[in-house]
Amino acid sequence: MCEANAYLRKDGNDELFLEMVDRVVPGEEGLLLEDIFGRRKVIKAKIVELALVDHRIVLEKDEQN
Amino acid sequence: MCEANAYLRKDGNDELFLEMVDRVVPGEEGLLLEDIFGRRKVIKAKIVELALVDHRIVLEKDEQN
Repeated sequence: MCEANAYLRKDGNDELFLEMVDRVVPGEEGLLLEDIFGRRKVIKAKIVELALVDHRIVLEKDEQN
Repeated sequence: MCEANAYLRKDGNDELFLEMVDRVVPGEEGLLLEDIFGRRKVIKAKIVELALVDHRIVLEKDEQN
Protein backbone atom coordinates (compact mmCIF):
# COMPACT_ATOMS: atom_id res chain seq x y z
CA MET A 1 0.00 0.00 0.00
CA CYS A 2 1.27 3.40 -0.90
CA GLU A 3 -0.44 5.58 1.60
CA ALA A 4 1.52 8.30 3.36
CA ASN A 5 1.56 9.98 6.73
CA ALA A 6 0.49 13.61 6.92
CA TYR A 7 2.47 15.94 9.14
CA LEU A 8 1.72 19.48 10.21
CA ARG A 9 4.78 21.70 10.14
CA LYS A 10 4.91 24.09 13.10
CA ASP A 11 7.96 26.20 13.83
CA GLY A 12 10.11 23.85 11.82
CA ASN A 13 8.85 20.70 13.56
CA ASP A 14 6.66 18.18 11.81
CA GLU A 15 3.87 16.80 13.99
CA LEU A 16 1.93 13.76 12.87
CA PHE A 17 -1.56 14.82 11.81
CA LEU A 18 -3.02 11.71 10.15
CA GLU A 19 -1.55 8.33 9.36
CA MET A 20 -2.06 6.14 6.32
CA VAL A 21 -3.51 8.87 4.16
CA ASP A 22 -4.84 7.76 0.81
CA ARG A 23 -6.61 10.80 -0.55
CA VAL A 24 -6.09 14.53 -0.26
CA VAL A 25 -8.55 16.88 -1.90
CA PRO A 26 -8.39 20.67 -1.53
CA GLY A 27 -11.79 22.28 -1.11
CA GLU A 28 -13.39 25.45 0.15
CA GLU A 29 -13.37 24.20 3.74
CA GLY A 30 -9.69 23.37 3.56
CA LEU A 31 -7.84 20.19 2.73
CA LEU A 32 -9.83 16.99 3.05
CA LEU A 33 -7.62 14.07 4.04
CA GLU A 34 -8.93 10.54 3.96
CA ASP A 35 -7.04 7.57 5.28
CA ILE A 36 -7.13 4.07 3.84
CA PHE A 37 -9.97 3.17 6.23
CA GLY A 38 -12.15 6.04 4.99
CA ARG A 39 -11.62 8.19 8.08
CA ARG A 40 -11.60 11.85 7.20
CA LYS A 41 -10.10 15.02 8.58
CA VAL A 42 -10.43 18.53 7.22
CA ILE A 43 -7.83 21.17 7.95
CA LYS A 44 -7.32 24.73 6.81
CA ALA A 45 -3.84 24.14 5.54
CA LYS A 46 -1.79 23.92 2.42
CA ILE A 47 0.54 21.25 1.14
CA VAL A 48 4.14 22.36 1.49
CA GLU A 49 5.80 19.15 0.42
CA LEU A 50 5.05 15.68 -0.83
CA ALA A 51 7.77 13.05 -0.52
CA LEU A 52 6.01 9.93 -1.65
CA VAL A 53 8.90 7.49 -1.54
CA ASP A 54 9.29 8.53 2.12
CA HIS A 55 5.49 8.31 2.60
CA ARG A 56 5.34 11.91 3.73
CA ILE A 57 2.83 14.68 3.17
CA VAL A 58 3.80 17.91 4.90
CA LEU A 59 1.15 20.53 5.60
CA GLU A 60 1.25 24.02 6.99
CA LYS A 61 -1.72 25.88 8.44
CA ASP A 62 -3.03 28.71 6.31
CA GLU A 63 -1.65 31.98 7.66
CA GLN A 64 -4.94 33.83 7.37
CA ASN A 65 -6.62 31.34 9.68
CA MET B 1 8.35 2.16 -4.44
CA CYS B 2 5.49 4.47 -3.73
CA GLU B 3 5.89 7.05 -6.38
CA ALA B 4 2.82 8.27 -8.27
CA ASN B 5 2.00 9.49 -11.74
CA ALA B 6 1.05 13.13 -12.15
CA TYR B 7 -1.80 13.97 -14.48
CA LEU B 8 -2.96 17.31 -15.79
CA ARG B 9 -6.73 17.63 -15.82
CA LYS B 10 -8.02 19.43 -18.92
CA ASP B 11 -11.71 19.62 -19.73
CA GLY B 12 -12.38 16.61 -17.53
CA ASN B 13 -9.66 14.47 -19.08
CA ASP B 14 -6.49 13.55 -17.23
CA GLU B 15 -3.36 13.68 -19.35
CA LEU B 16 -0.16 12.14 -18.07
CA PHE B 17 2.27 14.91 -17.15
CA LEU B 18 5.09 13.11 -15.33
CA GLU B 19 5.55 9.49 -14.31
CA MET B 20 7.08 8.09 -11.15
CA VAL B 21 6.88 11.30 -9.17
CA ASP B 22 8.53 11.23 -5.79
CA ARG B 23 8.47 14.84 -4.65
CA VAL B 24 6.09 17.74 -5.17
CA VAL B 25 6.98 21.12 -3.72
CA PRO B 26 4.91 24.25 -4.33
CA GLY B 27 7.00 27.34 -4.91
CA GLU B 28 6.78 30.81 -6.38
CA GLU B 29 7.46 29.50 -9.88
CA GLY B 30 4.72 26.91 -9.58
CA LEU B 31 4.76 23.30 -8.54
CA LEU B 32 8.09 21.55 -8.70
CA LEU B 33 7.72 17.86 -9.47
CA GLU B 34 10.66 15.52 -9.18
CA ASP B 35 10.59 11.92 -10.29
CA ILE B 36 12.44 9.07 -8.64
CA PHE B 37 15.37 9.61 -11.02
CA GLY B 38 15.75 13.24 -10.00
CA ARG B 39 14.24 14.63 -13.21
CA ARG B 40 12.33 17.80 -12.55
CA LYS B 41 9.46 19.66 -14.09
CA VAL B 42 7.90 22.92 -12.96
CA ILE B 43 4.34 23.80 -13.82
CA LYS B 44 2.04 26.65 -12.88
CA ALA B 45 -0.66 24.44 -11.53
CA LYS B 46 -2.38 23.40 -8.36
CA ILE B 47 -3.03 20.01 -6.87
CA VAL B 48 -6.68 19.08 -7.22
CA GLU B 49 -6.46 15.54 -5.91
CA LEU B 50 -4.05 13.03 -4.47
CA ALA B 51 -5.04 9.38 -4.57
CA LEU B 52 -1.95 7.67 -3.27
CA VAL B 53 -3.18 4.10 -3.19
CA ASP B 54 -3.98 4.57 -6.90
CA HIS B 55 -0.62 6.29 -7.42
CA ARG B 56 -2.31 9.38 -8.79
CA ILE B 57 -1.58 13.07 -8.45
CA VAL B 58 -4.04 15.23 -10.36
CA LEU B 59 -3.09 18.79 -11.26
CA GLU B 60 -4.95 21.64 -12.88
CA LYS B 61 -3.34 24.67 -14.50
CA ASP B 62 -3.70 27.89 -12.57
CA GLU B 63 -6.53 29.89 -14.07
CA GLN B 64 -4.67 33.18 -13.97
CA ASN B 65 -1.94 31.76 -16.19
